[in-house]
Amino acid sequence: MKKLPSSPVRLGIIGIGGMGAHHARAILDGKVPGLELAAVADASPERRALFPGIPAFADAAGLIASGAVQAVLIVTPHYSHTPLGTMALKAGLHVMMEKPISVHKADCERLLAAHTDPRLVFGAMFNQRTDPFFRKIRDLVRAGELGEIRRINWIITDWFRTDSYYGTGGWRATWAGEGGGVLLNQCPHNLDLFQWIFGMPSRVQAFCGFGRYHNIEVEDDVTAYFEFPNRATAVFITSTGEAPGTNRLEITAERGRLIYEKDTLRFDRNEVPMSEFARTSKEPFSAPPTWEVRFPISGHGGQHSEILQNFSDAIIHGAPLIAPAKEGIHSVELANSIILSALRKQTIEFPLDAKAYERELKALITKSKKTRPS
Amino acid sequence: MKKLPSSPVRLGIIGIGGMGAHHARAILDGKVPGLELAAVADASPERRALFPGIPAFADAAGLIASGAVQAVLIVTPHYSHTPLGTMALKAGLHVMMEKPISVHKADCERLLAAHTDPRLVFGAMFNQRTDPFFRKIRDLVRAGELGEIRRINWIITDWFRTDSYYGTGGWRATWAGEGGGVLLNQCPHNLDLFQWIFGMPSRVQAFCGFGRYHNIEVEDDVTAYFEFPNRATAVFITSTGEAPGTNRLEITAERGRLIYEKDTLRFDRNEVPMSEFARTSKEPFSAPPTWEVRFPISGHGGQHSEILQNFSDAIIHGAPLIAPAKEGIHSVELANSIILSALRKQTIEFPLDAKAYERELKALITKSKKTRPS
Repeated sequence: MKKLPSSPVRLGIIGIGGMGAHHARAILDGKVPGLELAAVADASPERRALFPGIPAFADAAGLIASGAVQAVLIVTPHYSHTPLGTMALKAGLHVMMEKPISVHKADCERLLAAHTDPRLVFGAMFNQRTDPFFRKIRDLVRAGELGEIRRINWIITDWFRTDSYYGTGGWRATWAGEGGGVLLNQCPHNLDLFQWIFGMPSRVQAFCGFGRYHNIEVEDDVTAYFEFPNRATAVFITSTGEAPGTNRLEITAERGRLIYEKDTLRFDRNEVPMSEFARTSKEPFSAPPTWEVRFPISGHGGQHSEILQNFSDAIIHGAPLIAPAKEGIHSVELANSIILSALRKQTIEFPLDAKAYERELKALITKSKKTRPS
Repeated sequence: MKKLPSSPVRLGIIGIGGMGAHHARAILDGKVPGLELAAVADASPERRALFPGIPAFADAAGLIASGAVQAVLIVTPHYSHTPLGTMALKAGLHVMMEKPISVHKADCERLLAAHTDPRLVFGAMFNQRTDPFFRKIRDLVRAGELGEIRRINWIITDWFRTDSYYGTGGWRATWAGEGGGVLLNQCPHNLDLFQWIFGMPSRVQAFCGFGRYHNIEVEDDVTAYFEFPNRATAVFITSTGEAPGTNRLEITAERGRLIYEKDTLRFDRNEVPMSEFARTSKEPFSAPPTWEVRFPISGHGGQHSEILQNFSDAIIHGAPLIAPAKEGIHSVELANSIILSALRKQTIEFPLDAKAYERELKALITKSKKTRPS
């Protein structure tokens, strides 16, 4: 069915620091035909002067109440996501939320509870869901092409950051300012893909280095071990201290082994599922014959622009969202549980006790010597 | 200095099942010039008939007391390693022990305590120490070429075994018969290389599947997380249930990242050590320039034959052993600690309490419904 011609959605961007300004320029450059940049909001006068001709508000409340926009894109520090998202939804605006949708699970629940009007579109900026490699992996898993998943190993350590990066804001990498480190800032994408592809695990035991590589109080080095309801196991490793980093996802399943690394997806496909072969073979040292399968994938998809265009399509045409905000709670729950497991040195079962984590986080903030966000 | 011509060492092989017979044939085929197969011992009359012309004893004690040999190679089920090794050393024979040198740490200590005569050569069959890939990795680590080690990830899951394999002996994969699964039978090599290259860790928390893939009572699936004295972390994963398996060792160090996989060793070398770069760079999103380094290595070394020839050279010429038996305790301690951590669901600190593990193992044997070795 041909889409009817329509006017672009009038969008306000709340927060035009690094990423917010990037999104604004993409829209002004015509990369998202479905959106029109109708207003921006930022506390900084310098930033408010960035986009001449675009109405600029000194605070989010002013923009939300102005009537100038139908939708907002929220690109502010993490802790403000829940109050700003709630305010916008209550004002009847569609909302696109940068990741993470909030800092901790209880705040995610509060934010999602504000989404009471089903006519309002509420999406999350999980742009890596547009990557054809991860789409293909998810399709293969969900179609059963891999058979039952047995083990996952994701080393995602190509998030190297210098001390200079951490110096760009006093709120950065503090419990009060960001509510976490690599898991809350860099890794929400990977944690989202992890649950998007594999579903939620049953439990986690994790080991974090807090300020291992940088002079920060939050985690910058993580090794997490997961178990899933079907007994599959997983190791997830991330860090902002390693150079050159690795991004390698290995999936061991009954039908073979899938490896994503360096823009290559390779499937070593067992002709006979491995456990069936183990049961039926008469040869002690044999293994199933395999096919070497490669997938003709190139590029990494539309990323932010595709998510934003999809947001517009959802508002105008009712298109299904690539990343509904309600799915954003899972990556936060994974991040919170990893941190809690490492702090307590114990296994954390899913679902996470949201109140317990909130108390733990507040205690960390109280004990913190680092500055709050300005 | 040119070696003096000398007669080969007269060797007896105790246990001529699969591996023992393999070693015997290698010696008979002239692959180990320094050794002469002078006798064999085995309880099985069929196996004793395997090598016509070679004196064959029905039990090890007979061979050891016979005066027919100067040295023995012990290739018997794991639990007999300590008593047989002790008997041979006390009889004044040089000993080469198949891996693992014993089943648990306390038994290793007893065995090593029997080595009181420094003139006797006591080696262990860690043939993978002859592999030029692992030698190069060790040399690079020890020479400081990698700088300080930060993280290790070894996925060594290419030990796939069928149920038919586990059916080849009632003692196989039982607490009473082998004292463990993949860690005691297949992985001693990798655990030995692990400690040979990196030294011993400070602690381990591990997760084992006991009979996850096969109808056995011992571990056939392992994920172990280690921490080292310098705060380096490591993940070690092994299994006999995965096909096709992986053998990939990734080492993250200050000077870059070394990856061994599929007969390739690759070093992405940082021009500036990563932590120094993080401290000194003014750019938030930069990373050190890297060199792509490859090493012209081919083949996997002399393996068993090289270890056996080295044993002869040590006896005749005083050559240093590639793998002294006393170093064999480390891989056993690693295996024991991984199992204990998984059973108790807690972190185990090194050194392992050998008596505590022995008690735990005896309790497992008592509770076991599986057969003892015949």
